[in-house]
Amino acid sequence: MEEAKGLVRRVHLVKFKDGTPLARIEEILKNYANLVNLIEPLKSWHMGKNVSIIYLDQGFTDVFEVTFESAEGLAEYADHPIHTEFSKQTRPYLDKVIAITYEPTVCT
Amino acid sequence: MEEAKGLVRRVHLVKFKDGTPLARIEEILKNYANLVNLIEPLKSWHMGKNVSIIYLDQGFTDVFEVTFESAEGLAEYADHPIHTEFSKQTRPYLDKVIAITYEPTVCT
Repeated sequence: MEEAKGLVRRVHLVKFKDGTPLARIEEILKNYANLVNLIEPLKSWHMGKNVSIIYLDQGFTDVFEVTFESAEGLAEYADHPIHTEFSKQTRPYLDKVIAITYEPTVCT
Repeated sequence: MEEAKGLVRRVHLVKFKDGTPLARIEEILKNYANLVNLIEPLKSWHMGKNVSIIYLDQGFTDVFEVTFESAEGLAEYADHPIHTEFSKQTRPYLDKVIAITYEPTVCT
């Protein structure tokens, strides 16, 4: 295996606070997905609801993957005012977050 | 956005126990990567070392993504004797694990 050329991915595990209105969560997801259209270094965005049937999930409700062509791209995204505003708007609704950056390998 | 057709992904955040020999970790990674050649429903496998510079990572050292064409494929993999043997061999070296299954969306 080798690293995919320069790709940098950040995965977030998120638990929304109990009682967060579904409409608010849907708005957050829509706004988050739309960042790919607004912040150039963000190359792809995927999410999924936790559907685990094996219980190692620690109550996280959602997974988000954001992928960049380089560490510089991630840094630019992280500091981008549209992203920081999105984070500021979203944080009050989050019970807990884990986020990890990695350079995904590809199988050869 | 919509869900990718039937894809089911499981992401694992792992922290190897302090003191695990590097050679043992490398052997685990090699054996894990090789499952894609041995277990038919496992369609893709990626991993990456944690390279986070923003500290929301709770000390996890590695991320693994395994992707299947269906929930049935994941179930078949989970119960496959090669996978269960791999898990049994690996577990003693793990300090902590979070694993979440989701159906990744695609942007439209």
